[in-house]
Order: sequence, then structure tokens, then C-alpha cells
Amino acid sequence: MMGTVVRNIHRAEGGAIAALERLGVATVHEAQGRTGLMAPYMRPLWRGARIAGSAVTALCAPGDNWMIHVAAEVLKPGDVLVVACMSENTDGAFGELLATSIKARGAKGIVLDMGCRDAAEISEMKFPVWSRAISARGTVKATLGSVNIPVVCAGALVHPGDVVVADDDGVVVVPSRLASKALETATAREANEGEKRARLASGTLGLDMYGMRESLQKAGLKYID
Amino acid sequence: MMGTVVRNIHRAEGGAIAALERLGVATVHEAQGRTGLMAPYMRPLWRGARIAGSAVTALCAPGDNWMIHVAAEVLKPGDVLVVACMSENTDGAFGELLATSIKARGAKGIVLDMGCRDAAEISEMKFPVWSRAISARGTVKATLGSVNIPVVCAGALVHPGDVVVADDDGVVVVPSRLASKALETATAREANEGEKRARLASGTLGLDMYGMRESLQKAGLKYID
Amino acid sequence: MMGTVVRNIHRAEGGAIAALERLGVATVHEAQGRTGLMAPYMRPLWRGARIAGSAVTALCAPGDNWMIHVAAEVLKPGDVLVVACMSENTDGAFGELLATSIKARGAKGIVLDMGCRDAAEISEMKFPVWSRAISARGTVKATLGSVNIPVVCAGALVHPGDVVVADDDGVVVVPSRLASKALETATAREANEGEKRARLASGTLGLDMYGMRESLQKAGLKYID
Amino acid sequence: MMGTVVRNIHRAEGGAIAALERLGVATVHEAQGRTGLMAPYMRPLWRGARIAGSAVTALCAPGDNWMIHVAAEVLKPGDVLVVACMSENTDGAFGELLATSIKARGAKGIVLDMGCRDAAEISEMKFPVWSRAISARGTVKATLGSVNIPVVCAGALVHPGDVVVADDDGVVVVPSRLASKALETATAREANEGEKRARLASGTLGLDMYGMRESLQKAGLKYID
Amino acid sequence: MMGTVVRNIHRAEGGAIAALERLGVATVHEAQGRTGLMAPYMRPLWRGARIAGSAVTALCAPGDNWMIHVAAEVLKPGDVLVVACMSENTDGAFGELLATSIKARGAKGIVLDMGCRDAAEISEMKFPVWSRAISARGTVKATLGSVNIPVVCAGALVHPGDVVVADDDGVVVVPSRLASKALETATAREANEGEKRARLASGTLGLDMYGMRESLQKAGLKYID
Amino acid sequence: MMGTVVRNIHRAEGGAIAALERLGVATVHEAQGRTGLMAPYMRPLWRGARIAGSAVTALCAPGDNWMIHVAAEVLKPGDVLVVACMSENTDGAFGELLATSIKARGAKGIVLDMGCRDAAEISEMKFPVWSRAISARGTVKATLGSVNIPVVCAGALVHPGDVVVADDDGVVVVPSRLASKALETATAREANEGEKRARLASGTLGLDMYGMRESLQKAGLKYID
Repeated sequence: MMGTVVRNIHRAEGGAIAALERLGVATVHEAQGRTGLMAPYMRPLWRGARIAGSAVTALCAPGDNWMIHVAAEVLKPGDVLVVACMSENTDGAFGELLATSIKARGAKGIVLDMGCRDAAEISEMKFPVWSRAISARGTVKATLGSVNIPVVCAGALVHPGDVVVADDDGVVVVPSRLASKALETATAREANEGEKRARLASGTLGLDMYGMRESLQKAGLKYID
Repeated sequence: MMGTVVRNIHRAEGGAIAALERLGVATVHEAQGRTGLMAPYMRPLWRGARIAGSAVTALCAPGDNWMIHVAAEVLKPGDVLVVACMSENTDGAFGELLATSIKARGAKGIVLDMGCRDAAEISEMKFPVWSRAISARGTVKATLGSVNIPVVCAGALVHPGDVVVADDDGVVVVPSRLASKALETATAREANEGEKRARLASGTLGLDMYGMRESLQKAGLKYID
Repeated sequence: MMGTVVRNIHRAEGGAIAALERLGVATVHEAQGRTGLMAPYMRPLWRGARIAGSAVTALCAPGDNWMIHVAAEVLKPGDVLVVACMSENTDGAFGELLATSIKARGAKGIVLDMGCRDAAEISEMKFPVWSRAISARGTVKATLGSVNIPVVCAGALVHPGDVVVADDDGVVVVPSRLASKALETATAREANEGEKRARLASGTLGLDMYGMRESLQKAGLKYID
Repeated sequence: MMGTVVRNIHRAEGGAIAALERLGVATVHEAQGRTGLMAPYMRPLWRGARIAGSAVTALCAPGDNWMIHVAAEVLKPGDVLVVACMSENTDGAFGELLATSIKARGAKGIVLDMGCRDAAEISEMKFPVWSRAISARGTVKATLGSVNIPVVCAGALVHPGDVVVADDDGVVVVPSRLASKALETATAREANEGEKRARLASGTLGLDMYGMRESLQKAGLKYID
Repeated sequence: MMGTVVRNIHRAEGGAIAALERLGVATVHEAQGRTGLMAPYMRPLWRGARIAGSAVTALCAPGDNWMIHVAAEVLKPGDVLVVACMSENTDGAFGELLATSIKARGAKGIVLDMGCRDAAEISEMKFPVWSRAISARGTVKATLGSVNIPVVCAGALVHPGDVVVADDDGVVVVPSRLASKALETATAREANEGEKRARLASGTLGLDMYGMRESLQKAGLKYID
Repeated sequence: MMGTVVRNIHRAEGGAIAALERLGVATVHEAQGRTGLMAPYMRPLWRGARIAGSAVTALCAPGDNWMIHVAAEVLKPGDVLVVACMSENTDGAFGELLATSIKARGAKGIVLDMGCRDAAEISEMKFPVWSRAISARGTVKATLGSVNIPVVCAGALVHPGDVVVADDDGVVVVPSRLASKALETATAREANEGEKRARLASGTLGLDMYGMRESLQKAGLKYID
């Protein structure tokens, strides 16, 4: 299976992607039944980015970023590059030159289960990166992986074309066929939040707003003064 | 013992709390004989907060934040909510809505040995949070824990009503009965620091200022040119 | 070997050090054949510092910072203090007073495989620190180590007088006898980067710019539409 | 998607499973292009077991083993139960009573990305277990997950009915549709090993047996006496 | 508070201790409401030991085992020495000579949140040890801690005189005043287990034996063929 | 510096090596001033081996074991192969065939800061291995490293020809020029141990045998009844 590049993938509809981006990771994750979240060790290089896009996937060998170069060619504007690694590795597989390159190709950001380098330069470019580490260690270009195959990245399964949403809370993957449903649920969910927020801000307790008192009592909670 | 909520707790005196807050974690920790510090994996969500308050404690099951809702009701203005977990867990037990709620109830901040979500929103609210992780993963409300019982949070024992001091250096717990003594020692300690700082800034060595040369020599230190 | 302080060390030439500082960690690391990089758990206390200087080394016992005080005396303006620890330890061996002291002695920064405290104060001073942790826990002055012996710090071998370069990407060590050669290679390497960056920014692929297509094909890469 | 149990799954053919079991994890992993391996933190409870079977999958909430009970009903003799968890968790979701139960239902073993308890008793029963931890902490039965859906377990994607091979080297997953091909490749591979082993045992170097000298020279390897 | 040795402590009744030992960690932990368990990184040096005894506690500085020597004097036959550390540390604070010493004083075993050395020799002596690491690194005797004060060891609060139970599943702490109640509950619990085991061994499902089908259905579990 | 193989190295004298082997890791580490110990994550594949030999070193890229093959050629009977890795990596760089090969060349064992596979087979061969992980993941032969250069392995500096001692307590490195001195100290140290052991076994306290009471009192230790 290694050594395969799939050029054309099915992408979700742009409007859905834009809407999911606006909703953000926590809301989208909740809306799709708490599935698809990457492990919390995936952290943004700089705070404040929020992106969504179609996943172009790459699977790399540890210490090797050859497939990122291969993936760059099949990226389309608005995509998010998702890089998985065959085993746990923190080497700096992605740096300023690659950031310049995939930005020029239209990528909205990169999510990589490896390390990132040139942290200062990429932060200044405001190019969005989520990675498991920052490391100056360079990588070789010696071992084939694949591009646009299904990968497991930071514990989440990603198919090419899935919608990847990333912000300060982490990274969540929405299967492309479920994107519109997730959007619908998330939007409904968000509609509620404003009202909830207002009530809580005025001092109403979650215990009352969510009606938890009865179930707590049934579960046996005892109060002592 | 699970399933108990203690409504009323003894809190330390407000003046002592305010003074401990001003002194900060490193000084207070030092002043009370280097006890009560939480493990360094507890990090602030955003840099620059410094708080102190009486601990209201909650013990949660992994992946479950029910007891945070229960604890919200017994919080009083100026308290700090301390959330321990029955086993290691990074799920996002605390998010923007809960932050809105406990802020409205007067909480000064939260210290939780679980994850925090809505990182961007809570940072913008400037609500102080110390947690072991940032994670968008939501939690259930299914398993009883307790509120206002003694808990071990990030390796530190916390009794309800203890003073919790937190800043960029981490989180320290001052047993309520020792708060005034800790304050006294810390204040004395701080009084010294200005003069020490001035001497060191002028180039005096710690070796001389602290009189270490003799003990180093006794211990057998050898100099080679 | 414990209990030895070497007062005088051979330092690299100042011009080379200044040039390596300007080039930064990733470029220098690359230029010297990807050697000498510290592990990526070494993180800057605050973002944006970039320093280089001659290493003065200290080896401390866990939970003990005595040798940092000893090392302060042998520091010369422009040096970087490198602190290794006999076993894994995160205690706050370095705080504001020590920062004031070694800054007054002319140190450009510190790299310590232990913890740092007074994070807010040191960040405000803009004194550069790279450490494995932030921890308020104070340390004792009870056990001898050594100063200016070769140490392994965060996985990298550091001889006294080696050039240490540190920035947001981490910390790299350049053996003093190789400093001018590393500089030469790094400078040559950097000269190339501007042109490469421009080509990539204009949409040229790394595949073409680096001429990878043939080797990928030889390795057996297959494209599927 | 949560809250679904699929009763009937497609299993690989028994002969292929038996053959893969005999070949073991390292050979099978190699044979299928180094894919499908779980992370190395998955360790056997006791050394010396080697099993293969069709995967019945369960996805549990952290601190909750309800779905293991549900999965027990849909197990068939010869199956291997694969338990994934919604977030990182080490609680003892599997103990002696469950081991007794699924053994009685014919399960050959269990692979769980959570903790195992009753380590002594299960080891004495010689029931094969691979887990991320040993922990006495019990779990609740409060939150729905699913049974026989695709899961990511210890970084590997597992579809129900995939062949799971486990031994002292860890756990590998063979997609059911690829089982016969993997078997074929693995068998061919193994046929070679005896001869290779004999040559190496007689002192032949891998350099010569694998013909590496030329490629090493091309890559620039230099020998110094 | 550092620098205190409490000579005399209240110990639980011997019969209760012996009974808790026979029941083992998992059963006792369950019986006392799933409290008091140490973190699962505490592992036995060798498999097969099961002990219980009254806790004599020691708090050590990292890299320092002075207080273990102090604690040895106040141990009584049948006690278990519990060693906590002021910060995370894996140094070999306990070796063959100390094992010989505290065995001679009647200690049944040691639980230490530091490292153990002389692994082969202590295993051969069959002296029971639970530790967070095996490490040959020796420790100094330079910094005071305390003996027989309450400590947090591997996340569990231990008061002197509490009953510590340890086996292949880990370590659990039973507050001395709750020992007889824990024993009672554990015994009742165990009485049930034989019958449960027999039913499960005969193929009865936990779903039926525990009557879970209704609650699963209420929670919304759906079966698909 | 990468891509260099040094064929001939200076080895310590055989008698010293044999004596260091008999003394074991903990004693040797202590005897040389507690230096040279590898990190405690280096664990033996099977318990009970104790070896010492001259280090032949190899530096590998992550996920690549090419240099192990190159090193096999320069091994001499009695040597220990020490494999460092350019970045943290757990892949199974060493398996049964390589074990067969280097055993045939006379190697006494291997110490590798990577993973080991074929755990069952190598354990059965009784070939001694210390590694950071067990992992079935195979490695490529694509990137040059070096053989017989100084390396940092698991935090310890190893020069080719240094004496490596390994047993159940871990791995320690004795610089070849210090081997006879370390041996002398270790032997003297060991001579004492028998008598100490006997005294401690008869109930004498370390407090008395080592004369600690006075220094404890000076340090301020207080006893409470």
C-alpha cells in the first residue's frame, strides 16, 4: 500500500466547510457525537488561528518528509494538509520553506503528527500549524509513504476529503459524507448557546438550567450542611 | 464517601488571602516550607493571571464533569474551584458556559486536573484557568463524585477552605489554619528580596551574599585554572 | 570527577558567535550535519528570543542548584549558562534572583535541563531561558556537582566553550573547534534560501525545485487518478 | 454513531487466521507492508502468549466498561475482543470475572487500550491480555459506546472482522480482505528466514548477505582505520 | 513541617490487616468505594507478592534517601514503609542493603514513589517492593524530610498507620479508621464472586447476570443485524 | 561527521572488563562517582542477564537500522554494541536475525536506544538486550549514520571502547581510561558490603552503622513521641 499517490479526491462542499470553520472545534466535535477528535497533544504553533478545509493526507516515515513534498502537488486552494507518521516522531518535518510552498498552493494550514521548525518565521507568516512538537531537527527524503490514503493521525481516522477543523482547542475530523449533518446539528446547538450563556451569566445554575437535580438525587447524592 | 456534598466550609480570612495573592506562588511555596505545590504539568490557560481564594473542591470521574455543576452552587464570591479526577484524564470538563456560570457566581478561577475547552473564548474572557490539558472532548454527567471533601489534585492535598494561590509558576495550596503563618513568613521573606536583588544586580555573587564559599570548600569543591 | 570547577575555558571567536546567532538554530543545526540538537522538550520561557554564546556548563544534583551559584562566578559577558542534571528533574532551580545575578555578570541567557520559576518576572526582564519545565519548587544547596566539565544536557553533549545557539526552535550546540566551519556552511546554505523561498512562493513545487521526481519514480511511487 | 451494536460481522477464514497466528506479529506486520501495528505501549499481561482471531470491537468511554459486557454477547469462539477508548484512560476495565466470561464464550484473548486488573488471577488462568496498563481501578457502566464499529485502538484502525495477531512483540491488525495476501507474503518471507538465519549464524555479515556494500558506498560511507 | 519524626503511630488491628491482605488490592479498592488507589505507574519489582501492613511514611527530597534510614528505626514488625518524594524522581533510593535492614526490622515490604536498585538481589531475597522505576542511581543523605506525617504517594493520601495493601494490581491505602468497614464490605463482596464466577464460566452473560439489558435499552442502545 | 566508520578502536583490558561485569551496574556506577548511567527507561528484554564489554557504537537515524549492519562487521568477540538514535524512536531496529548475526560475531549483547523485536525468540536465545521499547515495527536501510564515533545513548556519553556494564538495574558506561580505577574503587566498596549486610541483617540500623545521628540532629531533625 505504501508508495501510492491518489491525485483526485472528493471534497466536501465549500459552504459547509466555511460554516464548520466558523463553529469551531468544540462545537463541531460535540455535534457529531464526540467523534473524530485528535489527541490533545496536537497544539497550535500560535494561538488564535481557526481553519477548516478538505483533508489531503500524507503518511510519512519517521524522520522523513518526502511525502509532504509529494502532497504539495495535489493540494487545491482551501485544503488542509494532514500528515501522519508511521511511528511516534517529533522531528521537524515542516519548516518555513514548505510553509511558503503550500501556502502558495493555497493550503489553509497543516496538521502534522510530527514536529514543526522555523517556529518564529512561520508564526510571523501567520500560517496555521498544529503539530505534536517544535523541533529544529531536519528530516530526510528517503522512504516512500503515501498520499491521499486513509491515515490515523493523532488517534483520529482521516480519509482524504474529510473536513478538518482546527483551532486553539485542537483538531477534529468530519467525514465528508457527514459534513452537512454535522453542520446542521452544530448550528442548532450553537443557536441554543447564546440563551444558555445569558442565563448562566445572570447567575442561573447549570443544575437548574439543565434540570439535573432529580437525576443527582436518584443517583444518591447527599447534601451535608 | 462518593456522593457527598458539603455545603458550608470554613474559609480563611479575606485579608490573608489577598496578601497571599499579591506574594505569588513561588514566594508562598517557599514560605510554607516547600509544601503544597501541585505538579508542574498544571499550566495556566493564558499567561499573566495571579489569583488566590478559598478552595471549593470537586472530585470527578474521568470523562465526567457532573460534580463541577454541583460545586457551582456552593461557591461563594472569591472562591477558587479545585477539580480533582479519580484517574488520569484530559477530557475537556470545563468550557465557556461553565466559565460564564462560575464567574457569575463569583469564582476567581478554576484549577482542574482534567482538560479545558473553549480555550480562545475563555482566554478572551480573561477567566483564570489552570489545567493539565486543553481538549475539546466533552464530558458526560453520569457518575457521582463529591464536593467539598479533601482531594488530591495534581499531587497536592487540598482541603475545602484551604487557600489556593495560582499564577504563571503553577498552583500552591496553603492549609487554612496555616494561612496567617505562611503569610507572615512570606512577607518577611519578600522584604529581603528587594535588597538581595539590588546587590545581585550590582554584580555581587550569590556565593558571597549567601556566604557559600566555606561550605563549598568543606564539601570538597576544587578549583582548577 | 564531581566537585570540580574549571575557571578558564577556551571560547570561540566573538564574530563567529554573533554570526551563528543571526543564523538561528534550524540553519546552524542543518549546517553542521544535523548534530548537537537538544531534545525538543527544551522550550523557551517566552517566545522571540534568539541568542548565541559560549557555554559555561554546570552539573547539578536533582533538586539542587548549588552549582549554578558556583558557575555564576566564572561566567564572562556573552556566555550562555548550560545546566545539566544528574537525573531527570523539573524543580525550579533558576528564578528571578539568579536571573538578576547572571544577567549582571553578563550572561546572555540560560539553558537548563531542570525547571525555571518566577516565570512572569523573568519574562518581564526579557532574560532568555530555555528549560524543561516551569516549576515554583525551590531547590537546596547541599550536593556538589561540577562546573565547566563536559555535560550531557537534554541529550546533547556540551563542552565548556562550545557555542550554544537558542531560539524558538530549541537549542543547538556547536563544538568550538567547528564553529567557523559551521558558520561557513550555514552562511552558504542561507544564501540559497532567499531564492528558494521566492521560487516556492511563486508556486514552484519542491518536487521540481529539488528535482525529486526521478528518485520518487525509482523508489516506486505510483500515481492514481 | 454511539449506541450501536452490530451483531453479525464478516470473519476471515479460519485457516488463514491459524496460519497468521503461527507466523507471529513481526512477520505479519512486515508482510503487509508495515501497516496495522498498534503502538508499543500495548504490552502483554504475561509473556509467551501468541494468538490470532477475528476482531470484535468495542468503543468505551473513559472509566467505563459497559460496552465490554455488550460485546461479550456477540463474540464467537475464536474471536479476539478489541477495546478502544474515547480518550486516554488506564482504568481497570477488564478483570477476572470478565475474563472468565469471555473465555467461556470462546474468546481467544483481549486487546484493550485501557487497563487490566486481577493481573495475578488472569495470568494464572493463562488468558491472553494486551493492555496499556495494569490498574485495580474499577469502571462504571453508565455511558454508551458502540460494538462492532470501526475503531482506532492504540493508533491502529480496526474494522470488525479484521484479523488481530498478538504476541510478545505487540499487536497487529490485518484487514480481513487482505488476510490471504498477507498470509501468502508472510509465508514466503518466512521461508527465507531459515536460510538467512543459518548464514548469519555461521558468521556471514548482513552487509554481504543483503548486498549492502555498494549502496553504502554510493551514499558516501567512509571507513577509517 | 520538614524535619519531623513521629515515633509512635496508631496501627490498625492485626486481624483486619491479615484479612485485607488475603482479599487483595482490587477487591479492597472496590470495597472502599474506589478510593485510595495509587497511580498505576507503581509496579511490583517482581510478580506474585501480596502484602498488607500498617503504613510508616517517609517524605524524601528528590535524589535523597536520608529519611528512609530515619524511618527504619520507627518501623515495627508487620509494617509497610511508604516513601513519598517532594518532586518527581526515579533515583534508586532503595537497594539491597536497605532491604536487608528493614526486613531485619520486620517490614513486610516497601512502596516508594522513587526508584529501586539491586533489582536482581532484592528479587532473589523475595522482599516485596513497589516503585515507579528501577534505577541504579544512588542517592545522597543531605536534605531533611519527615517521617510519619501524612504524605501524598503516587497520587494517594497516606496517613501513618493506614493499612497499605499491595499486589500485582498495584497499591491501595485504607484509612485506619475505615479498615474494619472496608474489610466487611470486601468480604461480603468476595462472597458473591465465587457464585458469579461459576455462572459466567458456564456461559451466562454479564448482561443477564447483572440485569443490564433494560438500562442499556433506556440509554438508547440499538442492535443491528 | 555522518557517514564515518572507525574500524579499529582501543579496548579496555579483558581482566578489568570481567571484574566489572561481576560487580554489576549499581556497584560500578557508585564506584565511579555516580556518573555514566543511562536513563532508567533502558530495560532488559529478559531478567537475569549481566554483561560487560567494550562498546562498539552506532548512530542511527530514526526508523533506520542500516548502521547496525555496518557495525556488525567491526565487532570483536566480547564487545557490546551500543546503538544511539538521532531522535527519539521506538521502532524495532533489532530482531532475531541481527541477534543471530552479532552473536555469531561474538557480541555479548546490545544496548539500543530504539526498539527491539522478536522478543520471544531473542529471549529464548538468551541473547542480552537492553532497549527503550519492544516494537514489531521494522526499519529501513536508507540513511547514513556513523559507527564508532562518540554517541549520547539514553543520556550517557559513550566513546568507542568504553566499558559498558548492563544488568537488571540498567546500563552504565565506564570510560576506558578510568576502567582500572573504577574497578579498584568498586572492589574496595564491595569488600565492605558483606560486613555491612551482616550487621544490617542482625538488626543494626543504618543510622548507627553510618553514624548519621549527629548530622541529622545538626540539620534540625526533631523527634515527637
